[in-house]
Amino acid sequence: MHDKPLHVADVGEQGLLRRLLRFCDGAVVGDDAAVLSMTPGRSLVVTEDMLVDGVHFSVGLANPAALTTSYADAGWRAVAANLSDLAAMGATPLGITVGLGVPAQMPVSGVEALYEGMVACLQTAGAAIVGGDVCRSDTLTVAIAAFGEVIPSQVVRRASAQPGDAILVTGVHGASRAGLELLLQPDCGKTLSESDRALLIRAHQRPMPRLDVVQLWRQHYPDARVPAGMDSSDGLADAILQICRASGVGAQVWGDRLPMPAVFPSWLTPEVALDWTLYGGEDFELVLCLPKESADALQMHLPSAALVGEVVAGDAVRLVDAHGDETTLSMARGFQHF
Amino acid sequence: MHDKPLHVADVGEQGLLRRLLRFCDGAVVGDDAAVLSMTPGRSLVVTEDMLVDGVHFSVGLANPAALTTSYADAGWRAVAANLSDLAAMGATPLGITVGLGVPAQMPVSGVEALYEGMVACLQTAGAAIVGGDVCRSDTLTVAIAAFGEVIPSQVVRRASAQPGDAILVTGVHGASRAGLELLLQPDCGKTLSESDRALLIRAHQRPMPRLDVVQLWRQHYPDARVPAGMDSSDGLADAILQICRASGVGAQVWGDRLPMPAVFPSWLTPEVALDWTLYGGEDFELVLCLPKESADALQMHLPSAALVGEVVAGDAVRLVDAHGDETTLSMARGFQHF
Repeated sequence: MHDKPLHVADVGEQGLLRRLLRFCDGAVVGDDAAVLSMTPGRSLVVTEDMLVDGVHFSVGLANPAALTTSYADAGWRAVAANLSDLAAMGATPLGITVGLGVPAQMPVSGVEALYEGMVACLQTAGAAIVGGDVCRSDTLTVAIAAFGEVIPSQVVRRASAQPGDAILVTGVHGASRAGLELLLQPDCGKTLSESDRALLIRAHQRPMPRLDVVQLWRQHYPDARVPAGMDSSDGLADAILQICRASGVGAQVWGDRLPMPAVFPSWLTPEVALDWTLYGGEDFELVLCLPKESADALQMHLPSAALVGEVVAGDAVRLVDAHGDETTLSMARGFQHF
Repeated sequence: MHDKPLHVADVGEQGLLRRLLRFCDGAVVGDDAAVLSMTPGRSLVVTEDMLVDGVHFSVGLANPAALTTSYADAGWRAVAANLSDLAAMGATPLGITVGLGVPAQMPVSGVEALYEGMVACLQTAGAAIVGGDVCRSDTLTVAIAAFGEVIPSQVVRRASAQPGDAILVTGVHGASRAGLELLLQPDCGKTLSESDRALLIRAHQRPMPRLDVVQLWRQHYPDARVPAGMDSSDGLADAILQICRASGVGAQVWGDRLPMPAVFPSWLTPEVALDWTLYGGEDFELVLCLPKESADALQMHLPSAALVGEVVAGDAVRLVDAHGDETTLSMARGFQHF
């Protein structure tokens, strides 16, 4: 094939929309808006994320040297972030709409790969693209709004953590950060096995939102007190701090119980391992605060989960290491986009 | 005040988010997603639009010479476009989420004015901002997802027009296009009165989505056949063509019955007046196809409405002028973003 690749400018807005229709739920697109049925008695849950090339991912349009994300992976991750927000509320997804701002010189195959990645992630959750918009922009931009439904009494919120609650995380943290490092600086992973490298890179490129935890909870503990919680998209430390601030409580976090990828101790210094685990971000696990008995029970169904601390009275969030030494966690270390 | 104006870069992402919280519904923000109650028995209606500075509006960041929209007007129009999509489905709004991509050098006061404009338009519909996201972008971008609810049997769709239906438009067309022209070329309006100028400019800057028509229909005609229809955001001709294509029908459109601003005949040549009325776009009226008796009845409650044609068998959409001369309308004249 020696044909010149087709660019967005070659097909026009209508042409691009027609090509993207096959990624959408054909039963609901074609009108000014999509109509979706809801399960009777459920509340609506809505969230929106905006992702910009060069800030949230790098498909190399903004800076070709910084290509760390394929279009398909960028699409997957954008959807995963939104579905994770729904999971963090205890909701199940109904669908998403996609606003795409696209440079005229972007290859059409890249736009299609982006939508393929979105659909692939949605399929793991039984959801679909139900509408959206496409327009010209100098900066590749993906704005995803996700809609879900939740049993009103089962809404998971940040503000309901109570002193005495156990802090449970649903999986390892730091893997996505490590995967990004391996993409940016391949040499740093020379000592890792091929499968360990691949696993970490996959954690970065194809994170799985924990909608399974919502199902699990609903199935096994319909009458238990609903946990407080949120997702760890901005990092494990950030999630614990946000929950504590919203609930007006403090926490003790046990540094030696934080679940990290198995290769971290032999690969990284303890400082870097702890840093990536606490602050890496984008692991899209859930951080839940709930009575110790409930946490123990949930952990039996969730082998990847770990108890990492305890909610306490006050407002200090302290990290306690294996020797009993304490440091205070603060928001200042969090990710700032500007 | 001689202080340097505050820019987005000065307050950071968290600082900007804190400032924007006051524009949001305080009862539902603060978690990973917003939870909204729905009226029992209603279906969910969702839509998303993406607007980019320099393409859909010009606040002068992309091109300072092309400043035709204040930040507040840009916010109003972005929301109006989404609420109009809900109105076009026969839905009433529940709320919106806002994704904002914002250049670091944008004044914070501009971002706040943008949100003030959004909230002002939402208040006319009793709706609110319930969530969203803010991130850095070289291009000012506003992605709005709007959520509404509809009685399942009352959904307005494009595909249900039938031969014999009257074509009703809910108000004048061409006013927004005229307002834009007055902003771009003030000299062209020298012969207009101040109030006529102001009215046309307002039609461009502060369009009103026709949610009143949804209420009216539900109140007076709960048992009538639901009209086919859509909004005229991309122009009156485009709306008629889209409805006909989706319904597999044609139409006769009466050129001398198209409602246009009262000043058009004395101000513009007949050709320009017709062009702006048919193709101007962004008037955000509704175009409805329904039995003649229903159209006559609806018109009694809607003095701004006009019958502009008839749905016919076949697939040709013909414009018939006062002398009976016919021209064929086609999509080719429509707006293309690329």
